[in-house]
Amino acid sequence: MLLARVAGTLVATRKEPTMDGLKFLVLRQLDVDDTETGGYVVAADAVGAGVGEVVLYATGSSARQTELTHNRPCDAVVMAIVDTWEVGGEEKYRK
Amino acid sequence: MLLARVAGTLVATRKEPTMDGLKFLVLRQLDVDDTETGGYVVAADAVGAGVGEVVLYATGSSARQTELTHNRPCDAVVMAIVDTWEVGGEEKYRK
Amino acid sequence: MLLARVAGTLVATRKEPTMDGLKFLVLRQLDVDDTETGGYVVAADAVGAGVGEVVLYATGSSARQTELTHNRPCDAVVMAIVDTWEVGGEEKYRK
Amino acid sequence: MLLARVAGTLVATRKEPTMDGLKFLVLRQLDVDDTETGGYVVAADAVGAGVGEVVLYATGSSARQTELTHNRPCDAVVMAIVDTWEVGGEEKYRK
Amino acid sequence: MLLARVAGTLVATRKEPTMDGLKFLVLRQLDVDDTETGGYVVAADAVGAGVGEVVLYATGSSARQTELTHNRPCDAVVMAIVDTWEVGGEEKYRK
Repeated sequence: MLLARVAGTLVATRKEPTMDGLKFLVLRQLDVDDTETGGYVVAADAVGAGVGEVVLYATGSSARQTELTHNRPCDAVVMAIVDTWEVGGEEKYRK
Repeated sequence: MLLARVAGTLVATRKEPTMDGLKFLVLRQLDVDDTETGGYVVAADAVGAGVGEVVLYATGSSARQTELTHNRPCDAVVMAIVDTWEVGGEEKYRK
Repeated sequence: MLLARVAGTLVATRKEPTMDGLKFLVLRQLDVDDTETGGYVVAADAVGAGVGEVVLYATGSSARQTELTHNRPCDAVVMAIVDTWEVGGEEKYRK
Repeated sequence: MLLARVAGTLVATRKEPTMDGLKFLVLRQLDVDDTETGGYVVAADAVGAGVGEVVLYATGSSARQTELTHNRPCDAVVMAIVDTWEVGGEEKYRK
Repeated sequence: MLLARVAGTLVATRKEPTMDGLKFLVLRQLDVDDTETGGYVVAADAVGAGVGEVVLYATGSSARQTELTHNRPCDAVVMAIVDTWEVGGEEKYRK
């Protein structure tokens, strides 16, 4: 999984019918120092994350292992909202 | 999923028989500011997207989770046409 | 899927028994302007492509969705020979 | 699989219910000379690895082939703690 | 699949039980001119490859399509030992 900050939302009316009801989040990727890397991904939201929150997302077939995304053409999912992490004994982020 | 603009189409007569009837789109990848990144992908079209439209595409096994691409050797599919997205409270694109 | 030109062939006598009979092609990756990018991949041939031809290849689990590659340790397959593509209304390649 | 050093841990209270009980590790990727590459990944821990240990991790659907991660939205797992490796006849790391 | 030279071996005593008995090889990736690219991967050995040999390896779920790696948390496998390949009519490598 990778770290990201929820930067915004995306709306798509015309889509695969199985994607109806899914919320799309625009994620900006973070490194372990809580700095944006410049990369992004659009992910389905499985945990009710809000704009500004720091999350973990999973990609590939693992992104379909939630009730919301099962058997859908979805390759990225927010599967956790991060409370805190530490690296080298130093806290890098706290919600 | 990633953002892309439909840049063109591709024709391949000699192909895996299971790919018959699929339309191939040439996609130019976009970043969250609606700028082309230089990357591309050739994707199957599951939503009837036209040249010039901004779309979401899924890759890997998730690209086979549409009726059109099920069990086919297809690793990228356009699964939504984008209406709008916003980042940091600012609208970055509207159809 | 990505574009590539068939650059050559590869022979491997000692291999997973399930790979017997598969033809290995060395592919040089192309961008949408039909220019080599410097990248390559070794792919199984599912369509009888010849050296010099421009092809589409699929990777990952999608590379196993052909009769030849089903259930085999193969992560790249040539699944179409390209006739032509166009980008921005301009024909970029014709066989 | 790739080499990494366990750099720290991550806590996420609000997450996919199936992820309950999994321990998240922050991994810094290593090259074959035991030097950090600058990359990272957050992985589930399947072997009881501690901070500072050098591990192997697997990604993608292979990350779900452990008892702990089966059918969960997890795309990276620590599946071994490394004792030693050598390259070109030279020992590069020993625990 | 990609080309690599077997550079060394890796030992991990504490690991997922299903990985018992698998041999881990440290692979240095090669380009089509038989030059090392600087990249590496740790792969399971399905063909009895020795240090110094040039091999093909498969990644992702395809790495689990051998008898040795089936259903195991393994995302890279050596599935062939290369005899020779040619590019542009020129032999680039012969064992």
